[in-house]
Amino acid sequence: MSKKPTISIIGAGNVAWHLAPALENIGYVVNEVYSRDIKKAKALVKNLYDAEAVNDLDFRESNALIFIVAVSDKAIKKVANGIDLPTGAILVHTSGSQPMEVLAYAGTSNIGVFYPLQTFSKHSKMDFSDIPICIEAEKKAVRKLLKSMATQLSKKVYKTNSESRKALHVAAVFACNFTNHLFSISEEIMKKNKMDFEILKPLIVETVNKMLDSGAQKSQTGPAVRGDFETMDDHLTFLNDHKKQAEIYQLLSQHIVDTYLEKDD
Amino acid sequence: MSKKPTISIIGAGNVAWHLAPALENIGYVVNEVYSRDIKKAKALVKNLYDAEAVNDLDFRESNALIFIVAVSDKAIKKVANGIDLPTGAILVHTSGSQPMEVLAYAGTSNIGVFYPLQTFSKHSKMDFSDIPICIEAEKKAVRKLLKSMATQLSKKVYKTNSESRKALHVAAVFACNFTNHLFSISEEIMKKNKMDFEILKPLIVETVNKMLDSGAQKSQTGPAVRGDFETMDDHLTFLNDHKKQAEIYQLLSQHIVDTYLEKDD
Repeated sequence: MSKKPTISIIGAGNVAWHLAPALENIGYVVNEVYSRDIKKAKALVKNLYDAEAVNDLDFRESNALIFIVAVSDKAIKKVANGIDLPTGAILVHTSGSQPMEVLAYAGTSNIGVFYPLQTFSKHSKMDFSDIPICIEAEKKAVRKLLKSMATQLSKKVYKTNSESRKALHVAAVFACNFTNHLFSISEEIMKKNKMDFEILKPLIVETVNKMLDSGAQKSQTGPAVRGDFETMDDHLTFLNDHKKQAEIYQLLSQHIVDTYLEKDD
Repeated sequence: MSKKPTISIIGAGNVAWHLAPALENIGYVVNEVYSRDIKKAKALVKNLYDAEAVNDLDFRESNALIFIVAVSDKAIKKVANGIDLPTGAILVHTSGSQPMEVLAYAGTSNIGVFYPLQTFSKHSKMDFSDIPICIEAEKKAVRKLLKSMATQLSKKVYKTNSESRKALHVAAVFACNFTNHLFSISEEIMKKNKMDFEILKPLIVETVNKMLDSGAQKSQTGPAVRGDFETMDDHLTFLNDHKKQAEIYQLLSQHIVDTYLEKDD
């Protein structure tokens, strides 16, 4: 087996925090960790074997081959514009929403995407072997390197392109960001009515488990899918003083009715 | 300890299917199981010690004290109208959305609610000790009997009234029915783009776990809470041919923006 390529990590946020040690665990060497804030870079290199903390994007003298940009979506373009890479280096980002081409600002065509589909927070442990990783690259040699890195980290590796990755991101917004916001509204309704959100947790857990087992379409319950307009009207009256919540209730209920009940006609 | 009151179960659907044997497990005796469809009643009594399957609502000769109406929301009123109870019997329903008073059609004021807050399906096992049970009754004696029954079944018993139970139900619609529908939309987006919904499952599990641990407000992520309007516009363009999905995307994103970003101004 050939020697594993050396890595540099650009960024010291949540993704970098988990990805850098995980790569070292499977035998990759992290050469540098960059952060605008050198303290953050230093905090991360403490968890690594022999990496250097830097706050300068001039990597012309670096020995790293793969540069992984794990910064916020907004900052990727700025990094690509500002970075100086050694000859032949590969530049990838870890974002679900940014096109790969944004990296071309770095003046190289050795670009790719290495997108671990998970929500990271610094304090929770992550087992990368279960995290789906989406990889993308135009050049075959780059894709091969990324695929090798991904399959060593995770059992679930998917080839995407910017279009399918966008679909994936939109689907994730619905399944995660929006569902979380609905939990938030639910939390608020409970609080306003002086009830503990804890009461709802067993039902939430069972609902999600059912969905994971049987699929969401088969698991749909509630007044809307039953066509119980009396209850829906009653709930809308209850939400009368909360215009926005009522609007969301109305739109989602109508969409459930349209999805399930029209089929029976 | 006094002898436990005898029970009759009206209905042989999912709730009845789980509740009747669970009550027998803690020492209650189920006397009759009613279903319009006698076959369904017979199927359920097979799982009970010595209950009789009936399809007639004339219970004037029954020895049961507590009659638990576990039928669909729509059918509760009909049952209350049609049932003939023995003198002094107590009539309760198991619904989250129906007012207790609908039972008064039975001509008694010994009425109450015994609402297990869980989604039941016939084939999955249920541990009642973790299921929150909401109880409600006007008469103290009735409430006492229901409370005793509930606390023997479950560690989590809550006194509600028709108003708080309604709030609970609305909150559950947001947290369960609507979230499931968003999973469904997500499933559809993945399917249309020839990707496996499986890819999203680890992210969904982690998102829900985070919410259960830290609360939904603190766990909100995504383009909307970041104020990333470029990505949101991009997603709306992507959903261009799916007017309803785009409408839901727009409304929920706007509500997230309003909830989180205005605070910073």
